Amino acid sequence: MPKAKYVKDSHTIMTEMVLPNDTNTLSNLMGGNLMRLVDIAGAICAQKHSNRIVVTASVDHVSFVNPIPLGNVITLEAKITRAFNTSMEVVVDVYSENIPAGTKKKTNQAFLTFVAVDQSGRPIEVSEAIPETEEEKLQFERALHRRQLRLLMAGRLNPEDTESLKQTFFNSPTTI
Amino acid sequence: MPKAKYVKDSHTIMTEMVLPNDTNTLSNLMGGNLMRLVDIAGAICAQKHSNRIVVTASVDHVSFVNPIPLGNVITLEAKITRAFNTSMEVVVDVYSENIPAGTKKKTNQAFLTFVAVDQSGRPIEVSEAIPETEEEKLQFERALHRRQLRLLMAGRLNPEDTESLKQTFFNSPTTI
Amino acid sequence: MPKAKYVKDSHTIMTEMVLPNDTNTLSNLMGGNLMRLVDIAGAICAQKHSNRIVVTASVDHVSFVNPIPLGNVITLEAKITRAFNTSMEVVVDVYSENIPAGTKKKTNQAFLTFVAVDQSGRPIEVSEAIPETEEEKLQFERALHRRQLRLLMAGRLNPEDTESLKQTFFNSPTTI
Amino acid sequence: MPKAKYVKDSHTIMTEMVLPNDTNTLSNLMGGNLMRLVDIAGAICAQKHSNRIVVTASVDHVSFVNPIPLGNVITLEAKITRAFNTSMEVVVDVYSENIPAGTKKKTNQAFLTFVAVDQSGRPIEVSEAIPETEEEKLQFERALHRRQLRLLMAGRLNPEDTESLKQTFFNSPTTI
Amino acid sequence: MPKAKYVKDSHTIMTEMVLPNDTNTLSNLMGGNLMRLVDIAGAICAQKHSNRIVVTASVDHVSFVNPIPLGNVITLEAKITRAFNTSMEVVVDVYSENIPAGTKKKTNQAFLTFVAVDQSGRPIEVSEAIPETEEEKLQFERALHRRQLRLLMAGRLNPEDTESLKQTFFNSPTTI
Amino acid sequence: MPKAKYVKDSHTIMTEMVLPNDTNTLSNLMGGNLMRLVDIAGAICAQKHSNRIVVTASVDHVSFVNPIPLGNVITLEAKITRAFNTSMEVVVDVYSENIPAGTKKKTNQAFLTFVAVDQSGRPIEVSEAIPETEEEKLQFERALHRRQLRLLMAGRLNPEDTESLKQTFFNSPTTI
Repeated sequence: MPKAKYVKDSHTIMTEMVLPNDTNTLSNLMGGNLMRLVDIAGAICAQKHSNRIVVTASVDHVSFVNPIPLGNVITLEAKITRAFNTSMEVVVDVYSENIPAGTKKKTNQAFLTFVAVDQSGRPIEVSEAIPETEEEKLQFERALHRRQLRLLMAGRLNPEDTESLKQTFFNSPTTI
Repeated sequence: MPKAKYVKDSHTIMTEMVLPNDTNTLSNLMGGNLMRLVDIAGAICAQKHSNRIVVTASVDHVSFVNPIPLGNVITLEAKITRAFNTSMEVVVDVYSENIPAGTKKKTNQAFLTFVAVDQSGRPIEVSEAIPETEEEKLQFERALHRRQLRLLMAGRLNPEDTESLKQTFFNSPTTI
Repeated sequence: MPKAKYVKDSHTIMTEMVLPNDTNTLSNLMGGNLMRLVDIAGAICAQKHSNRIVVTASVDHVSFVNPIPLGNVITLEAKITRAFNTSMEVVVDVYSENIPAGTKKKTNQAFLTFVAVDQSGRPIEVSEAIPETEEEKLQFERALHRRQLRLLMAGRLNPEDTESLKQTFFNSPTTI
Repeated sequence: MPKAKYVKDSHTIMTEMVLPNDTNTLSNLMGGNLMRLVDIAGAICAQKHSNRIVVTASVDHVSFVNPIPLGNVITLEAKITRAFNTSMEVVVDVYSENIPAGTKKKTNQAFLTFVAVDQSGRPIEVSEAIPETEEEKLQFERALHRRQLRLLMAGRLNPEDTESLKQTFFNSPTTI
Repeated sequence: MPKAKYVKDSHTIMTEMVLPNDTNTLSNLMGGNLMRLVDIAGAICAQKHSNRIVVTASVDHVSFVNPIPLGNVITLEAKITRAFNTSMEVVVDVYSENIPAGTKKKTNQAFLTFVAVDQSGRPIEVSEAIPETEEEKLQFERALHRRQLRLLMAGRLNPEDTESLKQTFFNSPTTI
Repeated sequence: MPKAKYVKDSHTIMTEMVLPNDTNTLSNLMGGNLMRLVDIAGAICAQKHSNRIVVTASVDHVSFVNPIPLGNVITLEAKITRAFNTSMEVVVDVYSENIPAGTKKKTNQAFLTFVAVDQSGRPIEVSEAIPETEEEKLQFERALHRRQLRLLMAGRLNPEDTESLKQTFFNSPTTI
């Protein structure tokens, strides 16, 4: 296995302006266009961690609560939360900023899974990701539950083997 | 409430070719670009059902198991599964076709939620969606569970009120 | 010659939203952008019929009578009308829909010719196209006249050999 | 009626490079993308002649005989041939150039009709176009026949009134 | 005048992948596409500093020594160097990274000037920019010389008034 | 060395419409988008002169004094000023035209340097460029000073060797 790396080593920041073609009839960024940027930011982060070509394996549930209007500046921050054998979970936080108005808020958070592959597209082992801050350690812990949840929903995990997930899931669902 | 409509009345088909700029280093469609198309197909379907401007409220977990190579033709089929007060769940099935090779497969399935809004962006009531086929009726049933799951994970549903979800979720997770 | 196929087997539906960058100063879809979509829809249809790479050989006269405003949804329906040796005529019908207003109309019809080619770009024989409905049979008949007209105008058909075209052309020109 | 202008006063030249996203599986420019450029070049020419916003009314039959490969430089030359009341016919000649190979050829010719409109989209009278060179005078003459042919095929011209068109059409079709 | 702000407060990072359509025949990023990204990164930085809409006033000489190949990740870092009345100088450093190869280098540096404007496009006063680090202080100093040079070349500075510029320019030109 | 060519032989004209996605919050063309077009126009001109693939080596200082609004037509005229061993200086003049208003002005002028390369990207000798008109001869002369200035600022020219540049630069800076 390649040498372990710190989470901060692959921290990726993308800044974008919302252009006319990215918006819907209400002149707000379309959800799918945001997903496209989230995927690129996450993929660059996973590439940096693994020093490999990566492909998107999945995107978890994403909510769009705050509209992001035309002319706003979006900042996407991508961080690896945990590496598994050949896959990596990355969290992407999205911030939207109306610069003339001086307002900025966090609008979205997405968890994506990427797989490192070689030139023929075959999965290949990746470095361990070492969390340092409290926030990074928390996400590292939870990454395991989120992974179980994905496997469970894909029918690739035995329901009996999910006791701890079950507890978490129904007692404190917002922590998944 | 506006007059109920059949599921089939808003059935939407999008066909696209995978162009060079949509692809990654392995010349396969990037996940985020597929999400962008899925969002547009779903939004058109929800617009047709509601006869309203719609905004994306959420996209559920999406997996990318089969790579979709450059030059393939993608077909996206979007159908409303169920309408709630001001929101609609839409399922988008994605098929990828290598025409010269004569191969076609279903590569993805995504569930999205859209909210109908007026010109100022305020939610507005939508018609009921009437399922007719067995498949439509099945999705209509399951849409309720998926909705509970979304509310639960957003911390907007009391865990005690989810007994039936709990049963389903851990006994037959792939049916959610 | 490859096995004959039904017209309906290659029926292709494309749905698109009119985005800001596609429009002119009056915020209507530019004619050339519609042509681009018509060409893609037609090419996918011809690919499906022939199971080959196809190249556009020609586009017949197209009129733009009804403006298609920003935010409208366009549906393009492409159907093969008739296959000749290595070429196929495809008709693309364009519908434009203002969903909040609940209005939809047919805005354009275009006839395109595609040639099936191998990897080096050499023409290659295609399957016969079998019409089934009355409309398909009518277009199958007329496809021959349209082809004569194209050859005539390209100087590749002897004017003496066009008696039936001449009758049709000047007696019922709208049926070409 | 606004003051007459010379054909050369609205002569428009566009130069473009063929980029990867404009090409098909054989790495040649897709027909529909060329149509998009032809429409823009023609519209700019018609705008220059009329000093008005213009909308595309029709595009005549266009053939694609010579493939235009990735990396080639395309030159589009647009000239008004004749102005009618509120409409203008424009001819666009397309040249494709492989610069390292030192080869250049004319690949396409298209005739388009544009209508000058005011800010609300209503047709508005345009200047007469005065041809000067032999080539311009020839196109000015033929523009009338092409117009009759369009009206005839749109069912807006009485077949009896087309005697001269009929002669031309079947005796020297390539001059239309 | 609005309250002074630190240079670091408007520090802007953009990360982008080089996509096929951005590249030339040698599959390297085209210079003009890099300029487009540099301009956007610089404009976001100047917007953040001024909390205003900004327009590009000028871009200084930029060299392209290192080709940036398809698939590389580009990072653009934009920092304000100095604010004048209504204008700001921003430096954008460009880094290119081949992630699978594990190589990263600084490929370009550009100095741009932006003007803060109100909604009607009229210039409007901006905050002073306070440098803190040694590098920021150095750029703050040199910004004055670069400004004199721009004014001189625009014919808006009396050559007699440029004694210090003259010394610097011909004795240590690389420090401009 | 390949055979000398006249300046006029590689004269290149590009015409473009300003589309919504190219504009900033004030609906004017963004500076970086103009730079992108300037680079393409210049590269095509340098390709035509050298009959080679070319890469951008540098762009000199460019000012943006006149905003170019949405819907305007831009004309870019590119001409080689002088060829050196393997490099060429090209001047690109930009004109912006509001056609309905009947106004046209020169908005920008840019000097770019391109290097001719072979398929592996190695510099390769280019033809001499022969100026004919007074304007072409003037630019041919000044091209030498601009080149010295670039080399000086890159630290690749000895300040002692720049006596004539020094005179010109501080006595008549606007002629550089």
